[in-house]
Amino acid sequence: MGGSFALALRSKILCAKTARGHIFAIDKNAENLQEAADQKIIDKAYSLKDAPEMLSGCDFVFICLYPKTALEFLITHKDHFKSGAVVTDISGVKTDFIKNINLFLRPDVDFICAHPMAGSEKEGMQHAKAKIFEGRNYIVMPLESNKRENLDLFKRIVFALGFSRITESTPGEHDKKIAFTSQLCHVIASALVDSAEDTHITNFGGGSFEDLTRIAMINAPLWSELFLQNKKELLSQIEKFETALNKIKTGIENSDQKSLRGALQNVREKRIAMSNN
Amino acid sequence: MGGSFALALRSKILCAKTARGHIFAIDKNAENLQEAADQKIIDKAYSLKDAPEMLSGCDFVFICLYPKTALEFLITHKDHFKSGAVVTDISGVKTDFIKNINLFLRPDVDFICAHPMAGSEKEGMQHAKAKIFEGRNYIVMPLESNKRENLDLFKRIVFALGFSRITESTPGEHDKKIAFTSQLCHVIASALVDSAEDTHITNFGGGSFEDLTRIAMINAPLWSELFLQNKKELLSQIEKFETALNKIKTGIENSDQKSLRGALQNVREKRIAMSNN
Repeated sequence: MGGSFALALRSKILCAKTARGHIFAIDKNAENLQEAADQKIIDKAYSLKDAPEMLSGCDFVFICLYPKTALEFLITHKDHFKSGAVVTDISGVKTDFIKNINLFLRPDVDFICAHPMAGSEKEGMQHAKAKIFEGRNYIVMPLESNKRENLDLFKRIVFALGFSRITESTPGEHDKKIAFTSQLCHVIASALVDSAEDTHITNFGGGSFEDLTRIAMINAPLWSELFLQNKKELLSQIEKFETALNKIKTGIENSDQKSLRGALQNVREKRIAMSNN
Repeated sequence: MGGSFALALRSKILCAKTARGHIFAIDKNAENLQEAADQKIIDKAYSLKDAPEMLSGCDFVFICLYPKTALEFLITHKDHFKSGAVVTDISGVKTDFIKNINLFLRPDVDFICAHPMAGSEKEGMQHAKAKIFEGRNYIVMPLESNKRENLDLFKRIVFALGFSRITESTPGEHDKKIAFTSQLCHVIASALVDSAEDTHITNFGGGSFEDLTRIAMINAPLWSELFLQNKKELLSQIEKFETALNKIKTGIENSDQKSLRGALQNVREKRIAMSNN
């Protein structure tokens, strides 16, 4: 994700001809970092131990790490941010994150709580792509502490990167909705692959199974962390889904074609309305 | 689907310059039929009452109807097929279908039991597209009665239409596998949309929910029929999925990150192996 952000920043905002700023980057994967520097996607690569030096020169910081690691990075480097810097992270669970951040963040650093609803099942710089952001949602959860001009700058950057909609929310609402649109979907896709009798079942596939399970090429360390960080909301969404699944199952068990057809017709209309949002 | 077959036949096999045959068509929707004729996708349109006349001139017949209606059409017109004709249908449940067909089909008509694993959530001639077949599987279930040369012709047509793989199977195996790859996926997508709290939830979407539920823009009369025609196999697949879902749910309830991460890692590897098939 960090690579995709750098690529999109470079191609959409800080392209060579009109550049009025630089892109600095840190990645624990030295190869990724070198590749980004070689391709001029970033202007300068820093090692993790030089993070203080890098951060002291950054006006805007995107932290693209797993939730716990992002928090650790922020704690470790809280005194290294430039005064007035705008900082944001991309992690997918926010309530506890914000509570924690509020305990230590300096008042002269403006942290913007936000979550880009984009990604890919493929990891690493070689799979980074600016276009993964195109047409996507970016959820922003303004904090009382946020300066209006910084939120405005953030939104301008987001749209310039290719996102098509900014949804304003609160950390609590975000975690509830995301448990449904994102985490539940990853749970379902994973369970579906797990229940496949073998890996040759795709010889009988027609696209549906493939579409439903692409996200099951899942980053296991990241998603196991996300599932547990949002445990309460996710379990609640899993239960709602189980109830809906059971309703259809009962219709099939009872060979009740009329009610089954009615239920599917409602689903069709609901899904079409979602597309038209 | 009939429209997409006509389009693919026209553009891939019976294109104007090299045409060595004609495409005749019947559709209960007169508008669809007229549109196909106007666009020269078909050479001649027939009304349903003229089906006997049309069928008497057809060497190869694709029946693109819902399962029950396809059977009714075959019964009604069993005496109207040309002697030596090759007939196939596209319906998605086969065991009972084949049992029924064997009761009445003439020995001089070669029925090929097959199922194109392709489709779209959008209906009607205006949404017909030849490219929906590209790269897809076509499942063929050879019958003892099938002539070798007709099966060969069928396979040549299938590849020419754009399908990339023919999977040979039996009606029983087909119904079991399809219950998983196709029907279970439609059940899951429908349950997921049903469990959404409202239609604005997609403001929080990042692609996963959208990908998992595209097929929930479901053709309710068709799929309620398919679910019930394959009731036993589908219920068995739903139960296997519920077990797998429950396993992940339990890992979350127990905050057991290690086993959760291990399970997701297995899922990832299994899904990647499927992609490489």
